This record gives sequence, C-alpha cells and structure tokens, in this order.
Amino acid sequence: MNDSLLYDIDILKDFSANILLKTGVENQNAEIITESLICADLRGVKSHGIVRLPTYIERIEKGVLDPCAKMEFEKNFAAVALLNARNGFGQVAGYMAMKAAMDKAGTYGIGMVGVRNSNHFGIASYYSMLAMNENMIGIVLTHASPAIAPYGTKKPLLGTNPISIAVPAGKEIPIVLDMSMSVVARGKIRYAALTGEEIPFGWALDAEGKPTTNPQEALKGSLIPIGGVKGSGLSLIVDILCGILTDSCLTGEVKNITDTNGPSNTGHIFCAVNISSFIDVERFKTNIDAVIRKIKSLPAIDNNDIYTPGEIEHNLEKKRRKEGLPVERDVIKTLNSLAERYGVARL
Amino acid sequence: MNDSLLYDIDILKDFSANILLKTGVENQNAEIITESLICADLRGVKSHGIVRLPTYIERIEKGVLDPCAKMEFEKNFAAVALLNARNGFGQVAGYMAMKAAMDKAGTYGIGMVGVRNSNHFGIASYYSMLAMNENMIGIVLTHASPAIAPYGTKKPLLGTNPISIAVPAGKEIPIVLDMSMSVVARGKIRYAALTGEEIPFGWALDAEGKPTTNPQEALKGSLIPIGGVKGSGLSLIVDILCGILTDSCLTGEVKNITDTNGPSNTGHIFCAVNISSFIDVERFKTNIDAVIRKIKSLPAIDNNDIYTPGEIEHNLEKKRRKEGLPVERDVIKTLNSLAERYGVARL
Repeated sequence: MNDSLLYDIDILKDFSANILLKTGVENQNAEIITESLICADLRGVKSHGIVRLPTYIERIEKGVLDPCAKMEFEKNFAAVALLNARNGFGQVAGYMAMKAAMDKAGTYGIGMVGVRNSNHFGIASYYSMLAMNENMIGIVLTHASPAIAPYGTKKPLLGTNPISIAVPAGKEIPIVLDMSMSVVARGKIRYAALTGEEIPFGWALDAEGKPTTNPQEALKGSLIPIGGVKGSGLSLIVDILCGILTDSCLTGEVKNITDTNGPSNTGHIFCAVNISSFIDVERFKTNIDAVIRKIKSLPAIDNNDIYTPGEIEHNLEKKRRKEGLPVERDVIKTLNSLAERYGVARL
Repeated sequence: MNDSLLYDIDILKDFSANILLKTGVENQNAEIITESLICADLRGVKSHGIVRLPTYIERIEKGVLDPCAKMEFEKNFAAVALLNARNGFGQVAGYMAMKAAMDKAGTYGIGMVGVRNSNHFGIASYYSMLAMNENMIGIVLTHASPAIAPYGTKKPLLGTNPISIAVPAGKEIPIVLDMSMSVVARGKIRYAALTGEEIPFGWALDAEGKPTTNPQEALKGSLIPIGGVKGSGLSLIVDILCGILTDSCLTGEVKNITDTNGPSNTGHIFCAVNISSFIDVERFKTNIDAVIRKIKSLPAIDNNDIYTPGEIEHNLEKKRRKEGLPVERDVIKTLNSLAERYGVARL
C-alpha cells in the first residue's frame, strides 16, 4: 500500500536544498531548483516534483549533469540573448533566462532568451509565472526526448515538447496554460500497462503506426500528437526553436532525463511580453477578468464545473499551501535513502 | 457541373487589383491584398483566395470595412508596436505590421507588433513567409469569430484562431506551419451536410456538447479543438494576445467575415525573430535541412509519402506558378458580375 503523508512545505524545501547543497550546488541555485520542484508538487504535477530529486542526483553522480556549471550568456543583443547552461541544472538556466527575458521586456517591450546545453527544467509554468507575476505574459518552450512520430511515420522523433503561457488576471485566477503536444503523457500509458487496462483509441500508435488500445503495443510505438498533423507540426516548431535556433541539438537527439549515457543537451526558449507596452495593465486585467467570467458563465456540459487553464492547479496549490503537501510513502523511502547517503536529516 | 479554368497568375492579379482600385483602395495596398489572395490560391487554401474578393467588396459597400483607412502606429516602443488598422483591410495592416516587426527584429533581435481594429487578413502564412524570406522566423496569430466551445461548455465562444510559423531552410523546402485550433474547418462539416454524409467522431460537438456524427447537429454545436482541453487553452491564449493585448475586442466578440452588421474588430499579432542574433544563419539552415531529411527518411506508415509542414503547399505553388491557377466556373461567374458592376475588364 502506498498512501501519503502530509508534509509542511518548508520541511520539504529544506530537505531538497540540503541534498542539493551536498552535491555542490550553490546556495541560491539550490533554492531555485527546490522552488521549481515544490511548485510542481503544489500544482499537482507530481512527475516534475520532489520525486525527481533522486533522478537529478543520479545524473550528477554519473557525471552527466554539472551541479556547479558556470553558465554564461554567449550572445546578448538588445531584446534577445543566448545562454549556455554548460550542462548545468535546467532550473537554474531557466530562472536566469526568464529573468533576463523579463529585464529585456522592461527595456524593449519584449525579451526572448534561448538556452543551450541545458537539462530537464522541471515544470514549465514555474518560469512563465515568474513573468506573469510582474505584469508580463510569460512564454516558455522546451524540447524533450523522442516520443511522437512525425505525421505519417512510424518512428518517434519529436518530443512531447511542452509549452507554457501565463497571463496575469485582476481579481480572477490567472490563465496558466502548461501543456505538451501529445494527447496524453506516456505515464498514463505506462500505468495502463501496469494495471492491464486498455487505453482509448486516439492516445497512441503501435510500432507500425496504427492506432492501438493495447498499452504494451503503444509503448513500443509512439504518442499521438494533438490534432494529428497539427500537433506534429507544432512539436516540430518547438523543436526547431529550442534545439536549432539555440544551437543545442537536432530534432530527435535530446536525451531522456533517465538516460545517463551522456549530457541531455536540452534547449529552451523563454519569452516575456511587457503588457504595459501595449495596453494599460489595469485595463488588460479588467478585460481578462471579464473573459474568465464570460467563460465560467457558459452553459456546462452535464452541468459539470468549468475550469480555465491553470485554475485547477491554482486551487490545488492554495489548498496544499494551507494543508501541506502529500508525499507517497515509497517516495519518502527513496528520498530518505538519498538523505542517508548524503548525510542530511531524513524526512 | 463546376469545373475549373486555368488562369495566368498575372491576369488574376490585374483583375483583383483593378476591382480593389475602383473601391478606393490605394495602388500599393491593392497589390498587397491581391498578393495575399493569390498566395492562398497558389498554396491550395482556396477559402482565403480570390473567391473571397466579393465578400471583402460587400463589406466595403455596406460600410463595415474602410478601403481607405489611414492606419497608424498608436504605440511604438523599441521592439514592440501597436498598429490601429482603423477598420481597414486586414491584409494591409498585416503587411505593415509584419514589415515593422521585421525592422524591429533587425534592430533588436526580435520584433512584435499587435494590430487592433482590423479585419480578416486572409492566409496567415503570407505574413509569416515575409519574415522567413529575410532569414527570420515569422510568427503570426489572429483570432476569429466564435466556433469552438471553451472546454467543458456547450457554447462556441473561441475562434478557430489560426497561427502560422515559418522557418527558412537551406536547400530543402522551408517549414511553414499554418493551422487553426480546430480538428477540422467548419467548411468540411458544411460540405458533409450538403452531401448528406456522416462526419467522423472527433470533429464536432452538438448543441448539448456531445460528440456527434451528424453534420446538421454539428453545425448547431461547436468544433472540437485539437487535443480537447489543450486546443481550447491554446485558442484562448491566441484570443488574449490578439484581442485583449491589442485592445481590440474581448473573446467571443469578433465578427465573422460574412457578418456585415458592423466592423469585425479583429486583432492580430506579428512577430519576427532574427535568426542571426542567435546562430549563424548558414549553420541554422544546414541544421534545418538535416532535420527535414531526417524526417523524410523515417519509415512511413503504409509506405505513404511523408510531408513536412508547408511542403504540399510549396509543391502546389510551384506547379501552379508554372501551369496557371484553376478557378471554378461559378467563381468566375461571380467575379465577372463584380467586374461588370465596377466597370473593369472581365476574366
């Protein structure tokens, strides 16, 4: 049985930071990485939360992620820049890059910063919300290891390539879109394979590129992109921006976070748009609120609740900040064995 | 029977420009509008081609589109700007805005120009390719009249909200994505309704928000967005950027091109990213070529041909530039009656 225990957020943060510090991560960077992990857990995106800490640490131990990387802006030209993450933490690169994009947006109205030679950066909306909290629209893209077959082909080459766009609201809950380009995450198919259930048509293709309801066959095949040819195209564009524009790596060459055979060679794009360069910020927020209320007042299918992008995550974060964060017993066990190995206090 | 006649492109261009000039459109603007229409026809996007000319003219005649609008940059701040199209042609606004975004990208590395109080601008990739042809990545968004119900609701509020992103290649055919946020265009459902065929599940919802295969019920309902909740979110983001950031109109308020009860109040976003601010342009193009070849060498489902985004349209354009543009007899008839009314030479 794998039930959960509720933890105070500060306890989890201290735990994460302490482990990271032991691996040589600088104080401020340990905080950034920890904030990103806890942000994911608070918002219910468990797969990018503290459960990932052992995976990151393993990458450090295997020498395929540099915890002390000295990141450097290789290009820095007016409203754009290119940050070389030098195989350091994606979270540290992401934070630096989004902050730089925001600075540029303040000066030029928009800022766009590419990152090369980076690693998995966790939850994309952590960065888009940094911009949102400063009255900017935050846009974040990253590419990922092959999972989606380009339209019409049998072989995964494109990543799920998530994007996040965060838009500030006034009194209403802000709009925070955070989505991948596949209909579902591979995790859902893995889960179905474990439990022996069928998956719906429309989730995955088998190794021959045919739609399948068999999760085992699906895992040998590829994830179906949203809208078929459309999601395939969008995923390719994200790949081009994150991989080729940043001079990181070509489509299909990003390593999975669990593949410790070498640096993951990930690229990201961070963009901030300064709302006040276009429209009075209060007017913008009033109008966003009006649109949110308009959507929420529409007739619902089957009288279900209607949610705007990011609303469920926002509500969950609020609840968890108050009540604490649930961590599953098997995750606690793994984290505690990590703690013992690094000589820090157990959870 | 509605077969087609092949026309020389210059003849069609002259025809379109002559009609537009008669309505008071300036010479240079008549050229831009014409280029956009012919671009759509060349690339096989008939719905945005010369068949639309009578619809635009009708808007002028009904006083809901100003052919002589004096467009003006209301805001112009470093890398961003906001153009007030003053209810003029979307094509003219789009051309001005993308050119301004490209100028800014040359100076600042990136440029983003919003347009407000505009109209239908035709084919989005016409503008993204302007940037592409100058070694930039062109990004274009527009919102549209309600067609998609926000996820979980029964009522169309969001537009199909197309985006286009164009990326230059070296020797290979460039990547030109041009897509709406619905699984299919409403035109396909209208066609099925006319021919009495069923539509596949996954295209549309009925008025109660339930999936339907009945095209009549679908037309009373809404178009399903790509990836369901994901496409709904993406469409909302496009709406926010094009409508609220530009101070054009709120989500759900854009008028359809055929609705002559008032100005359409459309907004657009044009963005150009200067590739050379990030990476040597030749290296970028070499890598794009490598990725295109990689995709095209993948094993195909059922040994079909594999196409990259924009490839089919590129090939069609090449063929039609050589052989001429097919125009259906009933379209010729409508265009000729327009010609007679405005006293210009018939097709």
